[in-house]
Amino acid sequence: MENTHNFLTPKANLIGVGAIKDLPNELLGWKLSKALIVTDRNLVTLGWVEQIEKILKNVFISYDIFDGVLHSNPTVGFVEDGLSYFPHLLELKRDYSLIISVGGGTCHDCAKAIAVVATNGGSIIDYEGYNKVTKPGIPHIAVNTTSGSAAEMTMLAIITDESRKVKMPILSPNLTPLMSVNDPMFMVTMPPEVTASTGTDVLSHAVEAYLSTEASPITDSLALTSIKLVFNYLRRAYENGNDMEAREQMVFASVMAGMAFNNAGLGLIHAMTHQLGGFYNLFHGDYNSVLLPYVLDYNAVSVPADRLLKMAEAMGEKAASQPEAVEKIMNAFRKLAVDLKIPAELRKMGVRETDIPQLSQNAFKDISTFTNPRRSTLEDIENIYRASMGPADDKPPHNESKKIEVLSAAGKR
Amino acid sequence: MENTHNFLTPKANLIGVGAIKDLPNELLGWKLSKALIVTDRNLVTLGWVEQIEKILKNVFISYDIFDGVLHSNPTVGFVEDGLSYFPHLLELKRDYSLIISVGGGTCHDCAKAIAVVATNGGSIIDYEGYNKVTKPGIPHIAVNTTSGSAAEMTMLAIITDESRKVKMPILSPNLTPLMSVNDPMFMVTMPPEVTASTGTDVLSHAVEAYLSTEASPITDSLALTSIKLVFNYLRRAYENGNDMEAREQMVFASVMAGMAFNNAGLGLIHAMTHQLGGFYNLFHGDYNSVLLPYVLDYNAVSVPADRLLKMAEAMGEKAASQPEAVEKIMNAFRKLAVDLKIPAELRKMGVRETDIPQLSQNAFKDISTFTNPRRSTLEDIENIYRASMGPADDKPPHNESKKIEVLSAAGKR
Repeated sequence: MENTHNFLTPKANLIGVGAIKDLPNELLGWKLSKALIVTDRNLVTLGWVEQIEKILKNVFISYDIFDGVLHSNPTVGFVEDGLSYFPHLLELKRDYSLIISVGGGTCHDCAKAIAVVATNGGSIIDYEGYNKVTKPGIPHIAVNTTSGSAAEMTMLAIITDESRKVKMPILSPNLTPLMSVNDPMFMVTMPPEVTASTGTDVLSHAVEAYLSTEASPITDSLALTSIKLVFNYLRRAYENGNDMEAREQMVFASVMAGMAFNNAGLGLIHAMTHQLGGFYNLFHGDYNSVLLPYVLDYNAVSVPADRLLKMAEAMGEKAASQPEAVEKIMNAFRKLAVDLKIPAELRKMGVRETDIPQLSQNAFKDISTFTNPRRSTLEDIENIYRASMGPADDKPPHNESKKIEVLSAAGKR
Repeated sequence: MENTHNFLTPKANLIGVGAIKDLPNELLGWKLSKALIVTDRNLVTLGWVEQIEKILKNVFISYDIFDGVLHSNPTVGFVEDGLSYFPHLLELKRDYSLIISVGGGTCHDCAKAIAVVATNGGSIIDYEGYNKVTKPGIPHIAVNTTSGSAAEMTMLAIITDESRKVKMPILSPNLTPLMSVNDPMFMVTMPPEVTASTGTDVLSHAVEAYLSTEASPITDSLALTSIKLVFNYLRRAYENGNDMEAREQMVFASVMAGMAFNNAGLGLIHAMTHQLGGFYNLFHGDYNSVLLPYVLDYNAVSVPADRLLKMAEAMGEKAASQPEAVEKIMNAFRKLAVDLKIPAELRKMGVRETDIPQLSQNAFKDISTFTNPRRSTLEDIENIYRASMGPADDKPPHNESKKIEVLSAAGKR
């Protein structure tokens, strides 16, 4: 009976077409002096950073720009480069009263890390794991230019430690940004493959939060609505990036999935794809897409039937029994991947059979494994990786992979 | 198309049976020195305040107790009494780094007002209305001993200005507590009539947030789930206050309704009952209960049919058309009131016919009127008040009040 829940989220979240226009008003109340913008060069070139600069100028906040977030898996090095903007770091003197990240999950994660090391001292490596960050960071506003990672609202940052080839999860309520800004106008430039990948990431957040051992009535409500919105709007946003209604609804789906998993946690899909990201550097959402049906198939025995029926319903599928629900959910995942032209096999995404033992070891220890509905062994994880590899190119496909064969016809992007 | 949403909520919310046990950990990270507990004498006597004192002692935070919240409609005088604990108020010296309110909406509203006047200066009367509070208040943790008002998580405080006989709404993101604590163990002592009234308040928050002109997919999701939980668990919590599952689910319903209306706003029910509270001092939730069917009946023409059908579904009612949905929703509201032994007529709750013109004037100007789905005239509001009075005692009931007649048989509490 005793199972308490902590519902954590940024205190303010500006959401919707034109939401950015509300940012100046929010800033005015805070009496801030100096901000550090954390972003990447591409976003400067595209003009998104300039929009934030204009807002800061209008409210008389001076700023510097750190545009050294160089690629999509932020590293310890990026964090250190950002911290070099704080000249008196040893004495924990805060030269900036605000950090604004402009970008996607990469920039937000990097900014979270900079914000907390700036106040807590040391190196970001010291804070790997759960609840190691004891003091709040510098107030942080996350302005999204892509949607999906939900990094703009979570207490999680994933920073790659290149020396160990490990993606370090850093999890602490103190990493939660103070405010997120989710304006679909900032997302119209997302190319279709990014829309597909980030949209599938949203779906996997919602699915794993819903199936998590830490789910609550609040996270269930948000997760199911998010799943519903993904199935209603992701294909539209993918097919026409200027469909602002679809973009906006996907932003809501992303925010709701983010609130859900930030509080319920995730499961095996993310435990396994975090490792793939560390090894191969492809789109995170695409890996999730491949694993969605396999992990559901594996987890189904540990999920009450009525919960699976509700999930199928949110996906627009009617099912009368648990096996029917599982079958329909798996097919709906696969159909969505086909429509979004995401490969259905890890092998087609460069994953090597020989890496599986190491990947499985890492996934087994990943924090997301602990909230997976089915208690997993190392062998279970290895088996799921192997199943989702798909048939080897030099062998005829074996019997049970008929669906995979059909899907692979959709080809590689 | 352009309709932006700001989703605001306390950054952290501890929820569930035993949630209070997580409070010390949360406090430890904050490096606080001194707290002011805002509460009432009854809660001191019942021992709830002592539990918070123990926690503060364990984490080495010194504290004072202000137990001067004397009745359930907090006044300007209470706020001033609380502020007298801050000896150097004129220089805005903050002697307390934390305010903890222990109680229900009354204590939380009083604490919110104290927290912001302590940092912004002046009198709480200066901040009546929307967005007048420009600086954040002293960090505030709201520990609930009743559930329903959602004051523990909203940006609203209602303080009565006795000189004008007006309930002043003070609305600003800066009033939002930093953390809410919702542990059903603190609520077992709520007597049945309080469970009924606060539960109906939850329902009316969820219903009005769902029907509001500012509703978003997030608030819809939370509001519909809240309505569902109320219909599944409120009767159980009312009949057996020790049914911890029902108490806990009602806490979730309250939190979700609070998040929904904090961001979507409310409607005519609250615009009208705020005034009744200012005049007559009865349970706020009971007034809402009377108005629920009347205001729904009035609003229905302005609500899309599919939204009404979804609302009926959340209440466990199947309807095939808009008129059927409206009929079933109204009956479900009335049936619930009968089961909770809440009167169905304002006349039975001491409301006087002669006060209606003044009540209507005040309701017409109330901030909640602006987010009501149907644009209302002063006459509309007067008519709804008159209809919900019920038949006069000295006259035979007129034709259209057949339902009221039936319900009134349930009698007065």
